[in-house]
Amino acid sequence: MKERTEILEETFRKLAEEKKYASLRDLMQTLYPADIATILSDMPEKLMPAIFRLLPKDLAAETFVEMESDIKEALIKSFSDTELKAVIDEMYMDDAVDLIEEMPANMVRRILSQADADTRKQINEILKYNDDSAGSVMTTEFVGLTPDMTAADAINQIRATGVDKETINTCYVLDDKYHLLGTVTIRTLILAAPEETCQSLMTANAISVNTTDDQESAVQTMSKYDFTSLPVVDAENRMVGIITVDDALDIMEEEASEDIAKMAAITPSDKPYLRTGVFEIWKNRIPWLLLLMVSATFTGIVITSFETALAALPMLIAYIPMMMDTGGNSGSQASVTVIRALSLNELEFKDIFRVMWKEFRVAILCGATLTAANFVKLMLLDKIPVAVAATVCLTMLCTIIIAKLVGCTLPMLAKRAHLDPAVMASPFITTIVDVLSLLIYFQFATMILKAYM
Amino acid sequence: MKERTEILEETFRKLAEEKKYASLRDLMQTLYPADIATILSDMPEKLMPAIFRLLPKDLAAETFVEMESDIKEALIKSFSDTELKAVIDEMYMDDAVDLIEEMPANMVRRILSQADADTRKQINEILKYNDDSAGSVMTTEFVGLTPDMTAADAINQIRATGVDKETINTCYVLDDKYHLLGTVTIRTLILAAPEETCQSLMTANAISVNTTDDQESAVQTMSKYDFTSLPVVDAENRMVGIITVDDALDIMEEEASEDIAKMAAITPSDKPYLRTGVFEIWKNRIPWLLLLMVSATFTGIVITSFETALAALPMLIAYIPMMMDTGGNSGSQASVTVIRALSLNELEFKDIFRVMWKEFRVAILCGATLTAANFVKLMLLDKIPVAVAATVCLTMLCTIIIAKLVGCTLPMLAKRAHLDPAVMASPFITTIVDVLSLLIYFQFATMILKAYM
Repeated sequence: MKERTEILEETFRKLAEEKKYASLRDLMQTLYPADIATILSDMPEKLMPAIFRLLPKDLAAETFVEMESDIKEALIKSFSDTELKAVIDEMYMDDAVDLIEEMPANMVRRILSQADADTRKQINEILKYNDDSAGSVMTTEFVGLTPDMTAADAINQIRATGVDKETINTCYVLDDKYHLLGTVTIRTLILAAPEETCQSLMTANAISVNTTDDQESAVQTMSKYDFTSLPVVDAENRMVGIITVDDALDIMEEEASEDIAKMAAITPSDKPYLRTGVFEIWKNRIPWLLLLMVSATFTGIVITSFETALAALPMLIAYIPMMMDTGGNSGSQASVTVIRALSLNELEFKDIFRVMWKEFRVAILCGATLTAANFVKLMLLDKIPVAVAATVCLTMLCTIIIAKLVGCTLPMLAKRAHLDPAVMASPFITTIVDVLSLLIYFQFATMILKAYM
Repeated sequence: MKERTEILEETFRKLAEEKKYASLRDLMQTLYPADIATILSDMPEKLMPAIFRLLPKDLAAETFVEMESDIKEALIKSFSDTELKAVIDEMYMDDAVDLIEEMPANMVRRILSQADADTRKQINEILKYNDDSAGSVMTTEFVGLTPDMTAADAINQIRATGVDKETINTCYVLDDKYHLLGTVTIRTLILAAPEETCQSLMTANAISVNTTDDQESAVQTMSKYDFTSLPVVDAENRMVGIITVDDALDIMEEEASEDIAKMAAITPSDKPYLRTGVFEIWKNRIPWLLLLMVSATFTGIVITSFETALAALPMLIAYIPMMMDTGGNSGSQASVTVIRALSLNELEFKDIFRVMWKEFRVAILCGATLTAANFVKLMLLDKIPVAVAATVCLTMLCTIIIAKLVGCTLPMLAKRAHLDPAVMASPFITTIVDVLSLLIYFQFATMILKAYM
């Protein structure tokens, strides 16, 4: 794939330099918008707008939509008002809204002033929905049918209006108040006898989401029912739009990336890594590092308060890192598993006791295995006194149990408190478990080792 | 959503207990297969097969496909040969292959013996492809057209055969050797004049993947080009199947879950959390914990070898956990970012120096911020000698730089070595960075603090 676009880029550049614009235009018309966007994005900034202008109107809009926001911005700056209007008129509603959301305020004004009144009204409607809501990612261009239409009527209506709709694969049967009665796929319409009515052909009990629902749960619904588009209804239960499956794929990818970033204590960004500036990466990472560094000073306080015990038995120090790491890893395993299950709607808050009971048993199994392995190693390799080995092993067992319990409950409590569970992953769990494991360690040490000190 | 299925479950149980089977059957026919599957899975094991039998043939197969593998197994055990054959005959090829892959060997024999000869042959073909390859997730039921067909011919052909195809939204134009010439959507066919030929209507230059390509990159391709199905070709470039977008959503979700699990040092499992047994969870987690515990003993060795320095200046110990945590967090941020970018094909091995240079600059920025904050805290709150504070701060700066560099390079090297980059995440990076940061710490300590000891 990569190589193909690289070869094409070479060709593009040559044709542009030799001013063979007609051939370049012909070449581009054989390509997919996503490919043209990739190639243009890598072209020198001076050539790029000139080549973009060669594209026919519809392909230009489709290519524009596929570009990264910095390239879009550069292009809009180079557009005349007429060119801008042409691109906006050809765009689907959801893409137009995305564009508005990505651009700085002064550009937004220019874009909106070029959109026609009806488009502007629809864009403003969609912009009212919260980020990450189903309403904010829907498009308003779907095929609506009435229940008394026959299959032949429906196909005629699609022929007449389908060219402006984002998808015709699933059509929606609505009553005169725009309430959704059912869905009928183009496949059903084509395979049906021409005189059958939509009423009899449709799947009733249509599944829909509300404009205010979370986009991630909308995608889960689409995936569960294998839909290629999902109807979105407003508070009065009127159908206002659809989410299409190509957007669902993007949303799923974006949500997974966000969760992964948060789990590693990074503020998520939707820019590709190589296109993100060093300063921006720093800004996304530093607050978390600072916060975690400050929390980690508690471990220092614990250690300082047990300095005398450590001075009396310095070999205790050598096992601190292993204990902390094992506790951190055990806790992350539990927290990451629970966070993912929450994301996929496999778990709810009411399952918290089932989850804790499960993690407790897993912790006992893991703890027993690790402790046994560790005990053998301490006795045979390190050859330390049994009492010290017992202290280390007992601490490890307790740490693992606490780590797993903290790891599984914190994300669920976060969800309950309407916070993002993904933040309660490895780094925070590790910091909390560090302090707890050190406290346990020194407690056991003072108790068991009294004889030695 | 949840509440709806709970209410329905109650109703199901009552109708079944009162033996009102006709009503139960009518009720089920108004529901989606995914909902019936959820409800049946939660029913008592004795009732479940009886209720399943009430479903009409096509709905039965669709419901069956939506179930978890343990429920499928229980159902098949309760099926007569005729019932089993009916379900298999109604299934799409990709679902049949999934079933075979999930079931134990003795069941597979029984299932294959009930499939008709042609289905059996196709299943065996698909089973030959590697797990996670595009070939293993494709279905062979697509609409193939010839270039000389008119739009009207094409629609007639779809009417005649479409009922058995998994999707008709995109049709594939093939020559007589099954080479893919282009794609034509049902929308184009419907909007076109009836006498236009597929040759003139189709989008040439069709994008396809090879049967041996990775399923994840196939999904990336679908997402990039906004396809609802993606053609799969064999080594001789003949079209053998398609991947449909509903499967793409599942694959994307599964691949993200796998990456997330690996990043937290867990062997991925495709079962939902609450359906996974305690022993199985233990099995997925313990090897990594053991491996990491063993690696963490190196930190113990480093500490032991500097025991005299620590005994001379015990306040050094208090900063070990903070240093290790900060190093670990810095490294995870870099590694997780790079792992995700590799998964999304945003990065390739050849970018390694660009990535290292970027991470180096980010590390300098993060290191400077954290070190400055830390220095102020050490001087004002902890009131430790300047030389000790300098040791801690210098170590921190070096640790952060090393952590970011190790964090970004290891996943890329892993990818280069055809290993899974996701394994090179937080836990491994932390373990490596722990050892390095301690070594640096004690080096600086012995150098700078010589005067104090």
